[in-house]
Amino acid sequence: MSLHIVILAAGQGKRMNSALPKVLQPLGDRPLLKHVVEAAQTLDPDRIHVVYGHGGEAVQSALGYLDVNWVHQAEQLGTGHAVAQAMDAIPDDARVLVLYGDVPLVRAATLSHLVTAAGGDKLALLTVVLDNPAGYGRVLRNDDNRVVGIVEDKDANREQRHIQETNTGLLCAQARHLRDWLARLTNTNAQGEYYLTDCIALAAVDGVPVVAGQAGTAAETQGINNKLDLSRAERLYQRRQAETLMAQGLTLRDPDRFDLRGSLRAGRDTTIDVNVVIEGEVVLGDGVTIGPNCVLRHCTIEDHTQIASHTVIEHATVGARCQIGPFARLRPDTRVADRAKIGNFVETKKTDVGEGSKINHLSYVGDTRVGRDVNIGAGVITCNYDGANKHVTRIGDGAFIGSDCQLVAPVTVERGATVGAGTTLTRNAPADKLTVGRARQTTIDGWQRPKKHTPGHQ
Amino acid sequence: MSLHIVILAAGQGKRMNSALPKVLQPLGDRPLLKHVVEAAQTLDPDRIHVVYGHGGEAVQSALGYLDVNWVHQAEQLGTGHAVAQAMDAIPDDARVLVLYGDVPLVRAATLSHLVTAAGGDKLALLTVVLDNPAGYGRVLRNDDNRVVGIVEDKDANREQRHIQETNTGLLCAQARHLRDWLARLTNTNAQGEYYLTDCIALAAVDGVPVVAGQAGTAAETQGINNKLDLSRAERLYQRRQAETLMAQGLTLRDPDRFDLRGSLRAGRDTTIDVNVVIEGEVVLGDGVTIGPNCVLRHCTIEDHTQIASHTVIEHATVGARCQIGPFARLRPDTRVADRAKIGNFVETKKTDVGEGSKINHLSYVGDTRVGRDVNIGAGVITCNYDGANKHVTRIGDGAFIGSDCQLVAPVTVERGATVGAGTTLTRNAPADKLTVGRARQTTIDGWQRPKKHTPGHQ
Amino acid sequence: MSLHIVILAAGQGKRMNSALPKVLQPLGDRPLLKHVVEAAQTLDPDRIHVVYGHGGEAVQSALGYLDVNWVHQAEQLGTGHAVAQAMDAIPDDARVLVLYGDVPLVRAATLSHLVTAAGGDKLALLTVVLDNPAGYGRVLRNDDNRVVGIVEDKDANREQRHIQETNTGLLCAQARHLRDWLARLTNTNAQGEYYLTDCIALAAVDGVPVVAGQAGTAAETQGINNKLDLSRAERLYQRRQAETLMAQGLTLRDPDRFDLRGSLRAGRDTTIDVNVVIEGEVVLGDGVTIGPNCVLRHCTIEDHTQIASHTVIEHATVGARCQIGPFARLRPDTRVADRAKIGNFVETKKTDVGEGSKINHLSYVGDTRVGRDVNIGAGVITCNYDGANKHVTRIGDGAFIGSDCQLVAPVTVERGATVGAGTTLTRNAPADKLTVGRARQTTIDGWQRPKKHTPGHQ
Repeated sequence: MSLHIVILAAGQGKRMNSALPKVLQPLGDRPLLKHVVEAAQTLDPDRIHVVYGHGGEAVQSALGYLDVNWVHQAEQLGTGHAVAQAMDAIPDDARVLVLYGDVPLVRAATLSHLVTAAGGDKLALLTVVLDNPAGYGRVLRNDDNRVVGIVEDKDANREQRHIQETNTGLLCAQARHLRDWLARLTNTNAQGEYYLTDCIALAAVDGVPVVAGQAGTAAETQGINNKLDLSRAERLYQRRQAETLMAQGLTLRDPDRFDLRGSLRAGRDTTIDVNVVIEGEVVLGDGVTIGPNCVLRHCTIEDHTQIASHTVIEHATVGARCQIGPFARLRPDTRVADRAKIGNFVETKKTDVGEGSKINHLSYVGDTRVGRDVNIGAGVITCNYDGANKHVTRIGDGAFIGSDCQLVAPVTVERGATVGAGTTLTRNAPADKLTVGRARQTTIDGWQRPKKHTPGHQ
Repeated sequence: MSLHIVILAAGQGKRMNSALPKVLQPLGDRPLLKHVVEAAQTLDPDRIHVVYGHGGEAVQSALGYLDVNWVHQAEQLGTGHAVAQAMDAIPDDARVLVLYGDVPLVRAATLSHLVTAAGGDKLALLTVVLDNPAGYGRVLRNDDNRVVGIVEDKDANREQRHIQETNTGLLCAQARHLRDWLARLTNTNAQGEYYLTDCIALAAVDGVPVVAGQAGTAAETQGINNKLDLSRAERLYQRRQAETLMAQGLTLRDPDRFDLRGSLRAGRDTTIDVNVVIEGEVVLGDGVTIGPNCVLRHCTIEDHTQIASHTVIEHATVGARCQIGPFARLRPDTRVADRAKIGNFVETKKTDVGEGSKINHLSYVGDTRVGRDVNIGAGVITCNYDGANKHVTRIGDGAFIGSDCQLVAPVTVERGATVGAGTTLTRNAPADKLTVGRARQTTIDGWQRPKKHTPGHQ
Repeated sequence: MSLHIVILAAGQGKRMNSALPKVLQPLGDRPLLKHVVEAAQTLDPDRIHVVYGHGGEAVQSALGYLDVNWVHQAEQLGTGHAVAQAMDAIPDDARVLVLYGDVPLVRAATLSHLVTAAGGDKLALLTVVLDNPAGYGRVLRNDDNRVVGIVEDKDANREQRHIQETNTGLLCAQARHLRDWLARLTNTNAQGEYYLTDCIALAAVDGVPVVAGQAGTAAETQGINNKLDLSRAERLYQRRQAETLMAQGLTLRDPDRFDLRGSLRAGRDTTIDVNVVIEGEVVLGDGVTIGPNCVLRHCTIEDHTQIASHTVIEHATVGARCQIGPFARLRPDTRVADRAKIGNFVETKKTDVGEGSKINHLSYVGDTRVGRDVNIGAGVITCNYDGANKHVTRIGDGAFIGSDCQLVAPVTVERGATVGAGTTLTRNAPADKLTVGRARQTTIDGWQRPKKHTPGHQ
């Protein structure tokens, strides 16, 4: 039987206080709606239909690349009306699963169970048992424990208010039934809206069996209406990711101080210290340690490399057994070979650092090819930018660059060359020789130190 | 009817293990007592009386500027005695609200309800329902649910111990009643103290109706007696602030890793990443993003500016669409104009950075006027201090300062001037020309690298 | 009566996904097993026996220095079999306490009570009441509330499943009894293992009284089987340490964002801000403040010193009333005297900084003796490494080093000397005079700025 999934994503989300439509609000750096589409895709449906409304242009501009059928809901007349907009494109013999663009944490396994439960012409409803069900529609069951309807919180009697099983709004039914029920919905309620939930009563009237699948946790069915909800979803999402990674063997010093906004693959015996933020695609080898307060973005760190605290790495690769940081910043297109060291207050960019080479202190190395076993002293700066264009610096194997040199690119330090401290290198430094540019040191005898101005003279 | 508020602030707080009197311990960087006074002020009382005792000099020296009546309690003879010290200054026809200098999280709305509840000559008592009431005085009610007294934990019988509604000590009553009850208190108890709580029994005896207002949460009535209590109050206070800001639309990646010690105003679609600390008065515009681990102190950041991770900003203003950090430090009296960039390992102080100008790497720029569209290379240092006085550097629009230059102030780089890398600039650089000070680069042929000393020769 | 303690440490811990044996996994940077041995040592036993198996070499290589009797369990035939391996070395008249290498948080006081409870020939069992006992063996008691056995979760009937008191596996008994029971164990169960727990039934059969001591919290008896368990234990351990320190008077801005991996002694009125990591032995004086995001490792900070945010200190000592950071890095063998200042982007190593001296910005100072009241300007670098050997720099009292100087060691700046900005100092700078090495500043008239390459020409 074919499966169609309808995702309701038309809400404005006024309580977000944001110019961004609600379903584009970020969770782990991806829009809420994208999380839902990804969960839907795990079911391998025939088609996913996204019903959009408020901020439709923004939604499509952000997520237009998704392989879904975009359905416009011109007027916001309720969830039933929203689903109805998508029904034209759904054949009668399909099963239809209804999801919500602002319920992003629902698990693929939960959805799969729900779809299976809807087999044999049944209406399957996702419910969740809440400690405090106030405000939610309660699930009514008869003496045989069969679902017979939903009662809204405000309509519930005293006894019904004690029911802890609540309706999540997610449901799955046959298209031909659903089409029929949607056509029979009325909007004679306080909001004047057509409610999808009313289909449940119609199913009962029609003798269509209603079954309930229960969500594993309240978290996965939580809707997001404001920034507080969003922050809770973010922490639940982060916790879920952290637990998955720990189950695979990653050591997290504090899973509640770990943020992954993208994907992480980590080898064996790798440890991430507190307060690390990971963005984009990051791969860590075996035995890697990431110190506290690091930010890693789109990078690969190979086996047994140590990243010390307060290090920021973006779009870079670091080889095996390297030592990076603390306070290092590797900018895009940095490639560090094995056993190299990048120390504190060092910035690299579009730079290859050869095997075993060291840039230990207070340097800026950009647009540079650094060979093997090179030692770059403290305060060395590659002058790669002349105000108009960027130029390349080349440093041969085994070269030694003294502290505080400026290498004015394009320039080459040849293999084995030594450049004396404080040199402004504007021409190539020949191999194996000392090159230096340095003013003569003189001492001035009669000189006196400046004196502190008295306030009267300032 | 006039309202007088008495705040009891005489406790020593031995369990704090601190030289600071308890009511001066900081919560969100403000003394506990200040929080209570601020809550009291929201009621617009005729007068606030603060009863102080231990560390009175320190308390008055820290908070003497507050518009309150300071009342000295020479001997610590109990809460009843403490309130009595303040009664001389309170007229009979006033209503009196009693607060505690070490109960800082009580909400203004709770106090307002309590004062209202005391209308018509009643005694209003603030109570709180606790999951675990052990150790607290229980509220006794008669069959009509009217409060008839308080029983201390140690005096409670088995049945009374199951009562979860407890006395917080906060109360409001008519001054003439209170004066009378205080005079009738005895100290025939284990501690030999006069307890304010005993007034409740006296009210019952006198037929004065006792009503209870319940605190919204246990947190707001929690007293602070040690550093563990203080840490809990700090986190509750921070959480409360975070939720208020999120309700206004601010996005916090993790509200439990957010510290605000002062005040924050944030525009629309502004996001604060994890582990940010904000102190003093901070204003963020629309669409601002603050990266992880930043510290912002007394500063203004305008619309759409991005502050990258590990950035520290103090007493500075940053314009719109700027990019700051990571690892930038903006010290006091830094003013950054729109679209400017301040990069990694850069420190600024008493400096204006003009529109579109860049200081991207490893620089110290102090006491400097930087014009528009200036490019300051890596490792540039303004030598603003001659050992006795500070001097100003001026850099004209469109100037380009090569890497590793030292600008020895007072000095001016004129509009459009270029200063070559590695130059020590001691005189003004004329407009539109290249100025450079650089030693000749030479290569020494016969030179040999130093050799590693063998241990025997070291 | 003599006491022997047997610690079972033979498990492999497959679910850890680690090359490291389970009992070597770190908790607060110490192996799990070491925590258990330390708890055992507080009881002053006659001997501690550690039964090891998987990864035995690694365990002994890591912890061989511990004063314990290492007992090899060649085959993993169950907990009863494991204890039996150690019994050869234990005399009949001893009391035997059985602990587990993967239950690291058990408190000394709990163990002490358990050993006492086993007096008079009884078997004392440590139990814990769990909110959710599913999966654990339940403690069966008779009508007199005496323990009569343990029923495993899978064997429990409906009524027994409601029992919340569970077996922790920790027990204490007389050696002669235990030896007898161990010999009578059978392995006719699903796992084919000899279970220590079965001794309890045998004790009941033999009429040996079984008493239960209850653990204070579920946390202290939690076994660690995977990285999720390990992360929970880490946070519990950190919380426990934080509460101990707060009880002593330390102010922690957020005890849940505090990591101590070693030992900390702190004076009065000392405050640690959020997200600080402390490793090794650290001593803080009175009135010290540690800013957010600092990492302190094996260091001493004296009274009233302020360490600003993002500072890393390792194997260093800092005197009183100093100001360090933000963004400072003090590497090993840095000794900072009173009232000195080390500012942002400054790295020190093997360096003494004299009283009142300042290194405020962007400097690397290594292998250096800095006198008193020295001012080291921004961007100063000691060139301590010639590519083969390290050399010492000496800077006399009251010297002033201008910005961006390089001090090429071995070199001395004498007392009161001034070194001009941008100087490469290769010979000593004489006392009280100005020494400078600086190229002449020239302006080139006809020069034109480089132009942006058009793509066609690139």
